[in-house]
Amino acid sequence: MLKDLKVKNHKQIIEVGDVKIGGDELVIMAGPCAVESREQILEAAEHVKANGGQILRGGAFKPRTSPYSFQGLGEEGLKLLAEARERTGLKIITEVLDSEDLELVDNYADILQIGSRNMQNYGLLKKLGKVDTPVMLKRGYAATVKEWLLSAEYVISHGNPNVILCERGIRTFETATRNTLDLNAIALVKELTDLPVIIDPSHGTGKRSLVNPLAKAGISVGADGIIVEVHPNPEEALCDGEQSLTPNDFTSLIDDLDKVAKAVDKRLII
Amino acid sequence: MLKDLKVKNHKQIIEVGDVKIGGDELVIMAGPCAVESREQILEAAEHVKANGGQILRGGAFKPRTSPYSFQGLGEEGLKLLAEARERTGLKIITEVLDSEDLELVDNYADILQIGSRNMQNYGLLKKLGKVDTPVMLKRGYAATVKEWLLSAEYVISHGNPNVILCERGIRTFETATRNTLDLNAIALVKELTDLPVIIDPSHGTGKRSLVNPLAKAGISVGADGIIVEVHPNPEEALCDGEQSLTPNDFTSLIDDLDKVAKAVDKRLII
Amino acid sequence: MLKDLKVKNHKQIIEVGDVKIGGDELVIMAGPCAVESREQILEAAEHVKANGGQILRGGAFKPRTSPYSFQGLGEEGLKLLAEARERTGLKIITEVLDSEDLELVDNYADILQIGSRNMQNYGLLKKLGKVDTPVMLKRGYAATVKEWLLSAEYVISHGNPNVILCERGIRTFETATRNTLDLNAIALVKELTDLPVIIDPSHGTGKRSLVNPLAKAGISVGADGIIVEVHPNPEEALCDGEQSLTPNDFTSLIDDLDKVAKAVDKRLII
Amino acid sequence: MLKDLKVKNHKQIIEVGDVKIGGDELVIMAGPCAVESREQILEAAEHVKANGGQILRGGAFKPRTSPYSFQGLGEEGLKLLAEARERTGLKIITEVLDSEDLELVDNYADILQIGSRNMQNYGLLKKLGKVDTPVMLKRGYAATVKEWLLSAEYVISHGNPNVILCERGIRTFETATRNTLDLNAIALVKELTDLPVIIDPSHGTGKRSLVNPLAKAGISVGADGIIVEVHPNPEEALCDGEQSLTPNDFTSLIDDLDKVAKAVDKRLII
Repeated sequence: MLKDLKVKNHKQIIEVGDVKIGGDELVIMAGPCAVESREQILEAAEHVKANGGQILRGGAFKPRTSPYSFQGLGEEGLKLLAEARERTGLKIITEVLDSEDLELVDNYADILQIGSRNMQNYGLLKKLGKVDTPVMLKRGYAATVKEWLLSAEYVISHGNPNVILCERGIRTFETATRNTLDLNAIALVKELTDLPVIIDPSHGTGKRSLVNPLAKAGISVGADGIIVEVHPNPEEALCDGEQSLTPNDFTSLIDDLDKVAKAVDKRLII
Repeated sequence: MLKDLKVKNHKQIIEVGDVKIGGDELVIMAGPCAVESREQILEAAEHVKANGGQILRGGAFKPRTSPYSFQGLGEEGLKLLAEARERTGLKIITEVLDSEDLELVDNYADILQIGSRNMQNYGLLKKLGKVDTPVMLKRGYAATVKEWLLSAEYVISHGNPNVILCERGIRTFETATRNTLDLNAIALVKELTDLPVIIDPSHGTGKRSLVNPLAKAGISVGADGIIVEVHPNPEEALCDGEQSLTPNDFTSLIDDLDKVAKAVDKRLII
Repeated sequence: MLKDLKVKNHKQIIEVGDVKIGGDELVIMAGPCAVESREQILEAAEHVKANGGQILRGGAFKPRTSPYSFQGLGEEGLKLLAEARERTGLKIITEVLDSEDLELVDNYADILQIGSRNMQNYGLLKKLGKVDTPVMLKRGYAATVKEWLLSAEYVISHGNPNVILCERGIRTFETATRNTLDLNAIALVKELTDLPVIIDPSHGTGKRSLVNPLAKAGISVGADGIIVEVHPNPEEALCDGEQSLTPNDFTSLIDDLDKVAKAVDKRLII
Repeated sequence: MLKDLKVKNHKQIIEVGDVKIGGDELVIMAGPCAVESREQILEAAEHVKANGGQILRGGAFKPRTSPYSFQGLGEEGLKLLAEARERTGLKIITEVLDSEDLELVDNYADILQIGSRNMQNYGLLKKLGKVDTPVMLKRGYAATVKEWLLSAEYVISHGNPNVILCERGIRTFETATRNTLDLNAIALVKELTDLPVIIDPSHGTGKRSLVNPLAKAGISVGADGIIVEVHPNPEEALCDGEQSLTPNDFTSLIDDLDKVAKAVDKRLII
């Protein structure tokens, strides 16, 4: 089916400091949609650390549908992420939006996130092939699995073997959830490749109460970890408040995932 | 969101003989796509029984896209299902395609299955309200959750309180899998109603190797059981061979589900 | 692509009294969503007749998503349609929902309409093969062109050569319009078969102001006619008011279509 | 519905030399998918010119799903387009893929094309706001009309008032055509804004024989012009050969469009 695929020269297990992504240990990436303030990101980071997370997420450059929406703090946001890393020891994942910003973001990030809307931004993908930093490539919200894997090949074939995939939901006719999380795709990608795959149930559902059950489903189906939005106070979030977990929700989620992980012969490091 | 819903007077736990659907015990429904012969259905039934299944599936009236495809054995198929029930003690679920056949099928079935293409066949739904037999209502392959629940309301409001929902995958742009199993919908339906929900990973993926991981995901996300296609010899199946489990696959699946069930505080009866 | 198709023994031009569907003359079908009252249907019929329509539409049995919505007047509605036919000379198209109602509806209708939700109600399709009355088969809102044509084959292969297709919009991710009218499908079907095809811009857009431009597009792309909703007072319609044309809108539409028809070597009979 | 829209300070009629886009005269943009060689692009340009086209299309930087596919001739391709312009007087539209290439492409192009995959490449959109060159913004293959218009607002609100929209088909469940051309969207956009809109029936159908009827439909529904792929020898095209018109097809198309244009009170300049 995917006969055009030639993935090779890639890494099966991606190392980010002492965190290994793609093996028996599941990785937990968590944090707010966007870096909003020093207080917010530091508080979120402490909570993520305390509950067993390894990677802190937070956007400094935000891709927003409307030009009139909050666009992120830019370099100031990157500096705050670096401060949170120094305090907690968490690694940092943050999005790069444009090829002109790559060098800047790469100075701060431990993992470079490529968002859904940029999955087929081939100029950017080629440039990502020229750095060594791990890249987490989110699936386009209307991309086929084949297109997704070929986008990964753009990065790998241009020289960067460290690609992590991330399923974050696809666009369908259903409007009751923000997106439709495609767990078929996780199982299929695991059959077709040995790239690590992360599940994003926050964007995949768009609804706080659905994050927990879908995270469990994602781990059961074979994902190597999760990325979830956690905010100290979701009601005041500048973006994605409805899908952000409270700190308490996050604590419960980790407990629940621990049980499911064991049932599928994986484990959490907590 | 679903303000039109008025589900009431329905049962939360559906009893089919001594099988209870909707509680802490998961139900396993399994069998071939279609009843093809006496030998085939009896062999499948023995295997389902031996591995802990409670309900035997098998179509006697088949909804086929082409008028030139095998349309099922009709009443002869129903009789063979009844014989399998007598031998094994399994209950029987089978599809009713047309309101004129309802009485006939109802004479044999323990659960009446309404297929995806008939989810909005309102004439049939109204007539199903007039019988007592439990009805398993498959989600239309392009039906929203709201439309699905309103179709359940057709049956319930016309007098039959025994409705079981079944998610079997939706139609999306993705062609690498036959359908896209929508596990968001399982979690959402569990939040909006207390109707039992079954997951069908066979139609939901269309690919044998994906049935196991998606069944585990379905149980993790909150489904009350599974319905899967099992065939003594999938290569010779008259329909859906590529998505049918072999008897050995089925044995492994039950072992794996047992572990996942416990991780989410449910259990299999095996 | 559609190698399973074996359409044959069908008619290329369907005759409904002296109305011919499928030739150089375009057919205009118009009327309200549902028959609501004697006054309403007679007033609508007079207007359709006066502006050059040939066929009066109006539902007596209505497929409604919710069991609590208006379900149509049933046989009383059929009688009112017959009265409108007698007064105006218009032919009648009306929907049959369930195989048990087929004989009743067939006693009144000049064309039997099969709605989108019933396109794969195979029991009903087979029974339609046993009557002579022309059948207008609406495309399922998530049916591929191939599935649609195979459903037509169910009717034709069971004995009724008089099948008219109707494109009424498909379900996509876009929510700004009720459906997405698929004009690619019209051109494709005309290439693959010689069955007559009608376009329904009312359901295809769900918005009154878009009906006129999409009707023109439909004729330009090769449709053999249109079916549109017209209501004497759309604000008071019991269903589909937002997409119903006023009588004045309908008058303008016919004028505009007349020009477009000539540009593609067809003509209206007005 | 689109209450976030604030489009203003934009131009309703875009002037490209003496070509006006958005008024009563329809614009014809045509040429090969990619610039492949001097001979190919010059031959195509002569033909486009001879049949009444005003704008020559041709990609120098190509967005390809696979990194192993032909990626375009780059700057060499831009130079060949400039030569074709000098010879024929046609204006040039060509795609800019990455913000780092913007200055280079802008040195050659009369209209900058933003492809479907880059519709939400916000870094690029912001930079397009800083130039004066007209921008043709193709709709993302899974973008809603609202998202499309908000992407136009990125360009306009950052300073460039010259934005042309282009509908090129959306991704749906239908696989018989490459995309589903969404003509509802043309009519809707014309109702919501006064931006010029172009229709691309080549990508919108993916099939040569469907380009003519869908181009006619696009003009009937209100588009301000078309962009079509024409290749001197489609069988040898390095991309999109199946959807490219032969020179003869193109000649016929222009004749047919001329008639349809008059029926909707527009005209071609031929």
